Amino acid sequence: MGFSTFGRHVVGDFHGVSGEVLNDRKLLREILYEAAKACGATVVAESFAQFEPQGVTGVLVLAESHLSIHTYPEHGFCAIDCYTCGTEVDPQKAYNYLVKRLKPQKAYRRGLERGQGEINDLIIQTELKVVNS
Amino acid sequence: MGFSTFGRHVVGDFHGVSGEVLNDRKLLREILYEAAKACGATVVAESFAQFEPQGVTGVLVLAESHLSIHTYPEHGFCAIDCYTCGTEVDPQKAYNYLVKRLKPQKAYRRGLERGQGEINDLIIQTELKVVNS
Repeated sequence: MGFSTFGRHVVGDFHGVSGEVLNDRKLLREILYEAAKACGATVVAESFAQFEPQGVTGVLVLAESHLSIHTYPEHGFCAIDCYTCGTEVDPQKAYNYLVKRLKPQKAYRRGLERGQGEINDLIIQTELKVVNS
Repeated sequence: MGFSTFGRHVVGDFHGVSGEVLNDRKLLREILYEAAKACGATVVAESFAQFEPQGVTGVLVLAESHLSIHTYPEHGFCAIDCYTCGTEVDPQKAYNYLVKRLKPQKAYRRGLERGQGEINDLIIQTELKVVNS
């Protein structure tokens, strides 16, 4: 018995985040794990890199696909994406958790429906567009 | 001196790929590294997972962001994404390379422009929609 190929992919661009937070690899790792937990995903592997003079990339490999963050502390910017297969784990919940923890002044989001042929926009009711101003 | 936050994010859903190839972690790792090279990206870390009874996830952390693949051998399906910051590395080249190597019967693609405010669709002239039929 296989799994369906249906998946949801939510990406977010967060502007106006604390540069200190965005350069703190340990804290970002903690936040990513909590975001994975918030959407009910299972982490099976991880990969983190600290860049010089600044910036962190973190990727969690999930049983359901992946959750990533790329940070630009000097710009107060980070890009996140969460792709999950199946219908049980909702990547929007990981996105929402990241918004709460990273407190962007502006958050832009797109969602894509994966694995069903044409990659269409994903309509999500729980969208948070701008939460901290 | 910081970097611009501009980035390009190309995602692809490939249907009709060999199930044998999609369950070969070693081969997929080789193909991902070659795709990273094809777009001029620098690999700084990696994370791979083999799933039971089948399926592979592979993520390369790039100096320029990330390249990932999630496979469903039982459905002949895989989902890929390549996100690269800056203008020098073109994620579409990684996508094109993956199409060439994985030989999907149908390939669906979306591109997103990241780091510039609203996340708009990315228009790419070199798009390959269906290449192996």
